[in-house]
Amino acid sequence: MSAKKKKPQKLKPRLARGFPDRSPGDIRATDRMMAQIRQVYERYGYQPIETPFVEYTDALGKFLPDSDRPNEGVFSFQDDDEQWLSLRYDLTAPLARHIAENFNDIQLPYRTYRAGWVFRNEKPGPGRFRQFMQFDADIAGAPGVAADAEMCMMMADTMEALGIQRGQYVIRVNNRKVLDGVLEAIGLSGDDNAAKRLTVLRAIDKLDKFGVDGVRLLLGEGRWDGGREGEGDFTPGAGLAPQNIDQVIGFLADNQGSDSDATLAAIQKRFADNRNAGEGASELATISAIVRASGYGPDRIKIDPSVVRGLEYYTGPVYEAELLFDVTNEKGQKVQFGSVGGGGRYDGLVSRFMGQPVPATGFSIGVSRLMTALKNLGKLSSQDHFGPVLVTVMDRDRMQDYARLAQKLRGALNPVDEDGRVMGAGIPVELFQGNPKDFAKQLRYADRRGAPVAVIQGGNEKEAGKLIVKDLIEGKKIAETITDNAEWREAKAGEQLVDEADLITTVRSVLARHGLLGRGG
Amino acid sequence: MSAKKKKPQKLKPRLARGFPDRSPGDIRATDRMMAQIRQVYERYGYQPIETPFVEYTDALGKFLPDSDRPNEGVFSFQDDDEQWLSLRYDLTAPLARHIAENFNDIQLPYRTYRAGWVFRNEKPGPGRFRQFMQFDADIAGAPGVAADAEMCMMMADTMEALGIQRGQYVIRVNNRKVLDGVLEAIGLSGDDNAAKRLTVLRAIDKLDKFGVDGVRLLLGEGRWDGGREGEGDFTPGAGLAPQNIDQVIGFLADNQGSDSDATLAAIQKRFADNRNAGEGASELATISAIVRASGYGPDRIKIDPSVVRGLEYYTGPVYEAELLFDVTNEKGQKVQFGSVGGGGRYDGLVSRFMGQPVPATGFSIGVSRLMTALKNLGKLSSQDHFGPVLVTVMDRDRMQDYARLAQKLRGALNPVDEDGRVMGAGIPVELFQGNPKDFAKQLRYADRRGAPVAVIQGGNEKEAGKLIVKDLIEGKKIAETITDNAEWREAKAGEQLVDEADLITTVRSVLARHGLLGRGG
Repeated sequence: MSAKKKKPQKLKPRLARGFPDRSPGDIRATDRMMAQIRQVYERYGYQPIETPFVEYTDALGKFLPDSDRPNEGVFSFQDDDEQWLSLRYDLTAPLARHIAENFNDIQLPYRTYRAGWVFRNEKPGPGRFRQFMQFDADIAGAPGVAADAEMCMMMADTMEALGIQRGQYVIRVNNRKVLDGVLEAIGLSGDDNAAKRLTVLRAIDKLDKFGVDGVRLLLGEGRWDGGREGEGDFTPGAGLAPQNIDQVIGFLADNQGSDSDATLAAIQKRFADNRNAGEGASELATISAIVRASGYGPDRIKIDPSVVRGLEYYTGPVYEAELLFDVTNEKGQKVQFGSVGGGGRYDGLVSRFMGQPVPATGFSIGVSRLMTALKNLGKLSSQDHFGPVLVTVMDRDRMQDYARLAQKLRGALNPVDEDGRVMGAGIPVELFQGNPKDFAKQLRYADRRGAPVAVIQGGNEKEAGKLIVKDLIEGKKIAETITDNAEWREAKAGEQLVDEADLITTVRSVLARHGLLGRGG
Repeated sequence: MSAKKKKPQKLKPRLARGFPDRSPGDIRATDRMMAQIRQVYERYGYQPIETPFVEYTDALGKFLPDSDRPNEGVFSFQDDDEQWLSLRYDLTAPLARHIAENFNDIQLPYRTYRAGWVFRNEKPGPGRFRQFMQFDADIAGAPGVAADAEMCMMMADTMEALGIQRGQYVIRVNNRKVLDGVLEAIGLSGDDNAAKRLTVLRAIDKLDKFGVDGVRLLLGEGRWDGGREGEGDFTPGAGLAPQNIDQVIGFLADNQGSDSDATLAAIQKRFADNRNAGEGASELATISAIVRASGYGPDRIKIDPSVVRGLEYYTGPVYEAELLFDVTNEKGQKVQFGSVGGGGRYDGLVSRFMGQPVPATGFSIGVSRLMTALKNLGKLSSQDHFGPVLVTVMDRDRMQDYARLAQKLRGALNPVDEDGRVMGAGIPVELFQGNPKDFAKQLRYADRRGAPVAVIQGGNEKEAGKLIVKDLIEGKKIAETITDNAEWREAKAGEQLVDEADLITTVRSVLARHGLLGRGG
């Protein structure tokens, strides 16, 4: 050991890259939003089921959009028995494990929902985190596309339950079998073409963002982000021949916009002779018939050939909830808000574990993207949390007096039932727990915490069996009209000297004056 | 590559060791319990703050009870820039990082709470998981032990809010400075004795479990789990000299049980000449005075010299919520339920990052242990979730008819306000989404899901504009009195044939008959 003892360097407090803290406002708003979503799922008969954060790596499988880059996308580590563990990257792969593992105990069809954090080992960026929350609903043991139709209707209901009005959202539906038909038609079948197929699907997925010309570039030689050669990043293209590019673009042109029936007819006509894609088109027709019969028009749920959904495990219908209003992006451009979630049918995911097929379909909502959308729409109910009633400390040797006052007030403003359970939302009461030496600091603290009332008791008041109840809201108003320091001290703005026995009635009357009572007190 | 292509082995679906799934009942009961705890914290002025699951390993530090075994206890992995990341092992170390990182923006004293999953890389066992939930409350920038007193009162309030009655719980309080005084008195000061100090503290911590004789063994030569030499596992002891063992046991005998004042007096007397431990004893006196003045008697909060709390970062008062009723352990013995949470003052944890001291104190509740306790007390409100109204499928070609009926019912039984928000808890409505071929299977599904009503429409009914509303609760009662199969078919137990237009009123009247309406419908 070296004789020279180094002083340890001070540790720098820092969040790990891409892993954010959450503020009280964010937590409260998210909780309220999720309670509303939960109610929609519950009324369709879905039940909460949660899986753990960590799974065996092989049980999760590799179904991420970027699984063509091996060992990327997932956080993994080895257990002491050398088995590989991973943090879940979505909620669907663990659900498939759960269903297979408990197959004999569960009732099919099995409707479940869950909200949970998922983890991606990706490069973080603005608004792009390595932990984020998803809210999923799934149904397993549901072979018919009526279940996919149910998912689309439930997504539409969820949007409306959150206050997103009809016309501000649309659920877009497509079918992977139809997309496979397009890929087959341009000669991209077979294992050798897997990577190219992915590039083509990704190009199609960009129609909303880059328009037809952008997709043409991505299907062909590639595309410069800045729009012109040499500007911005370059995305390599699929390198399709011109006639194949035309075929793909022709398929996308089947989209007749709001005339969902015409879109459907065009797709059905295109694939009349293709068994697989034809089946996909006919599934779309069934979904369309079911949602229309249930009262969901094409303004809410429509067929759209450009919907892809990135995850590799989808096998049939895919669907996406898109928000239609404009927002300003980081470059100052107006763009449509876009997708807040989606999903599809994954008939093969559970049967990876099983000797039998287990058809399933479900969707996932990106919780923070949806939060951002609701903020943009002014739909985040902001039920402000009022600050606490603050019991200040004038004399540090009498902490037990102040604690007693605080406890008395707390009980009065937060009644409990006979079992001791808190009744409704009350009014917080704080005893000042910082260093009490500087009294002005206590009042500054009260101000910053938005406290409506401060309770003050110095030695003189104590001796006389009195205390001061200071109305901080009123005091602030009065203080604004006062310019002189001496005058300010004189004014004792908003202060009342009362008997200690009248503490509760006085505080209650101040709170009532500002409309803060009736919140429990 | 080998020419012989191996068929891939089927994947075994299995939870990772120590990482459990959660059932609907568990999720709902936990959510309700946590809402009640949250209300208590909120009425003391605490606000929700959450930190991420992943932190830089060095920011967390190593403060686990078993950190004497290096590299154990924590799940860690390397980032792509080779920095080490860890899953959080508690919620206190990340909070310290959060406070230090945001020190200029936060108002001191800073009262926060958070519920969250934490991870321990330990050997899992029965009831011992590698992911579990903690619910913490902390106050930073609070130098006085009045803050520790507040924590004790808040823990007591939490127990009562959950329906644990006075007498069924007690908050036990001690002080690390007092424990340090004991260690000093038996000559265990200095860096060289760190490991031995830990062994002595662990021995003291076992007083509840093993009694005085057990602690004597753990302070001396060690203890056999079975009680006699060679029986069960052996725990090595601290190897103290007999007179030092007597000193420790003498200190533990300061505990005067329910006479908390006498305990306090004994501790104060013992450490009258020891500056540090004397300060600890005087802090205990202050805490005692504050809680008594606030109306918390020794039946709720008492001084107890055997409280240790395992984490290494505690520097002052430590406290623990103990449940006093008996439960039967896995060996069939009656034992006291014991601790459901606790905490203490950790004045050094934030200042590891700072140039200045940041005093803080807080506690952590073990959520699943508390759940187990409430189950034992019959205090888990079980607000049963009723099964759904089930729309069955007689004719798979008419899925859109059935979907429409389900949607109509869903709307009627789950009214929304004019903004589309769901009003209150409604009654779930499901469309059967399994394979509809076997109709008896649909009714079995309804039974297992606890469905009160099934809606049935075959071709004949459809043609006549009718449908069948089957009261499954009534039907079950009738079926129990029927022994003959033909009689059963004849009875059509609980079935009503009604006009399609009367669907909603009929279903509502059946639900009302069983007291299931008024839940939103």
